[in-house]
Amino acid sequence: MAKQKMILDLDTGIDDALAIAYAVASPEADLIGILSSYGNVVVERSAKNSLRILDLLGASDVPVFLGESHSVVTDHFDVMPISAQIHGKNGIGEVAVAESSRAIESESAVDFIIDAAHKYKQDLILVPTGPLTNLAAAIRKDPSIVKEIGKVVLMGGALTVPGNVTDAAEANINQDAVSANEVFTAGLNLTMVGLDVTLRTLLTRKETQQWRDLHTKAGDAFADIVDFYIKAYEITSPGLNGCALHDPLAVGVALMPDLVTTLPLNMIVETEGTTWGRTTGDANRLNEPSTDQASLTVDADRFLNLFMTRLSKLFEEN
Amino acid sequence: MAKQKMILDLDTGIDDALAIAYAVASPEADLIGILSSYGNVVVERSAKNSLRILDLLGASDVPVFLGESHSVVTDHFDVMPISAQIHGKNGIGEVAVAESSRAIESESAVDFIIDAAHKYKQDLILVPTGPLTNLAAAIRKDPSIVKEIGKVVLMGGALTVPGNVTDAAEANINQDAVSANEVFTAGLNLTMVGLDVTLRTLLTRKETQQWRDLHTKAGDAFADIVDFYIKAYEITSPGLNGCALHDPLAVGVALMPDLVTTLPLNMIVETEGTTWGRTTGDANRLNEPSTDQASLTVDADRFLNLFMTRLSKLFEEN
Repeated sequence: MAKQKMILDLDTGIDDALAIAYAVASPEADLIGILSSYGNVVVERSAKNSLRILDLLGASDVPVFLGESHSVVTDHFDVMPISAQIHGKNGIGEVAVAESSRAIESESAVDFIIDAAHKYKQDLILVPTGPLTNLAAAIRKDPSIVKEIGKVVLMGGALTVPGNVTDAAEANINQDAVSANEVFTAGLNLTMVGLDVTLRTLLTRKETQQWRDLHTKAGDAFADIVDFYIKAYEITSPGLNGCALHDPLAVGVALMPDLVTTLPLNMIVETEGTTWGRTTGDANRLNEPSTDQASLTVDADRFLNLFMTRLSKLFEEN
Repeated sequence: MAKQKMILDLDTGIDDALAIAYAVASPEADLIGILSSYGNVVVERSAKNSLRILDLLGASDVPVFLGESHSVVTDHFDVMPISAQIHGKNGIGEVAVAESSRAIESESAVDFIIDAAHKYKQDLILVPTGPLTNLAAAIRKDPSIVKEIGKVVLMGGALTVPGNVTDAAEANINQDAVSANEVFTAGLNLTMVGLDVTLRTLLTRKETQQWRDLHTKAGDAFADIVDFYIKAYEITSPGLNGCALHDPLAVGVALMPDLVTTLPLNMIVETEGTTWGRTTGDANRLNEPSTDQASLTVDADRFLNLFMTRLSKLFEEN
């Protein structure tokens, strides 16, 4: 089987770190680059976190690119206090993972998307798990990439459940609803992996203990990082009994689409008033063919099994 | 095949009149009663409209019951100007259908639901296509009916598209979100037939012309009534090119569940602030078994074919 060329676009972030691990551990994926975005942390920290997680996982050959530093409707970005509470001030649960000696690439994230789209075309999968600012900027700069990129599988949005920042908005979409709306309405082959399914996919301390029991550097670090995340969830989502595997699930669905059931739906992102950031169907285009799909249900047991098998093997070796 | 005992709960209303016609015309249904609700018209007008439509269709044996006159959070009800614009001041497109000489039943709609639930149990289908005030009141009065009623198939709500009164709220749910939330969370075997599917199911002047060509009293009256509705849609929803078969689709789904695909989902109705009336998944109960289902897609061609075949035959005979 030919490996699929994959680009992650991350605001790294704890579940972003898990997304990196899942991509590195997946035999179907050829991870050709990681873009950085603002969100859980500022964009430079995101890039540096991606580099150090890659080093930790023995994947120091994956290049990391700097993305946009703020949304298209703001002139700067400050980390929200809730983000620091959930991901830690350093983005990876205050755990001391060594900084990488590698440099961020000189090419911008936006240009790397465009170049990769031209080069790999339908073989390219883009997985954004943060704001959609980089992808929207790339489309604005070179609209021809819309029909070139094989597929976009994004973590973000909420169709059949309320948002997690406001009733309307999920956190990633909330950061830049205007860019998100451009991406959702561009005509991309787009699959949304939103709260509808990520909240059904939970990791608990039972799983992090399995990593700890490996007695490896990566196992220990990831157990510490994710336990921080689970502890934050105990405060913000006391009923959930674990943490949601938001970002790794998007990587999972990108590689194995049948992990979820999807609804083909022409979606929009609302960009005004109290409904800012709501991802919903376009009532005026219900009867038109759609290139967007929203994930509705997930085989959570199968994904968790894949996730644990792959990550445990990876952590065992690092 | 044993016929299914069906109760309609209507705010009659043009598409409610079409729901009556579809129920009367359907060999699978034994229409044992029609409840009246406020909404498109006031509750007394709704009951009287149901009686005159039943007479027009030769179904003068179906009893009509008076329901609640206003929502559980208000002390009266006034018809909204937009309702009068869409359905006409008399509720049936200003068309002069003879008033019935029959009387509204003396038993209340609420008591009739309770009695029918005890009597028919799992054989009973309740199809509300207006506010859910009557059903919520019946459940409050006798909670044992929740597990007795075979199923509730309601027209109302919007899960994957915005509402039609506000971004959050569909019209029926908007009338009484508090009662709707009680119904959605009661544990009923409940199927929501919302804007998600009803906006995909359209009737045009081509179809009403077929009724007109029958040269019967019912054919002429329904053609006039529905042309009024289509004309109103041309103003309120210029892109739609027809009128939505909101209420009859709920009857269709009640009798043939495979007309739609559904998502099992524990739903709530929001009852506060700007999101008043939003029907959405309960993020805290995503991983619990659900008795609610939301309709997501519809075989619109099949339903329209059934709808036209059945109504044309009924109108030919009346």
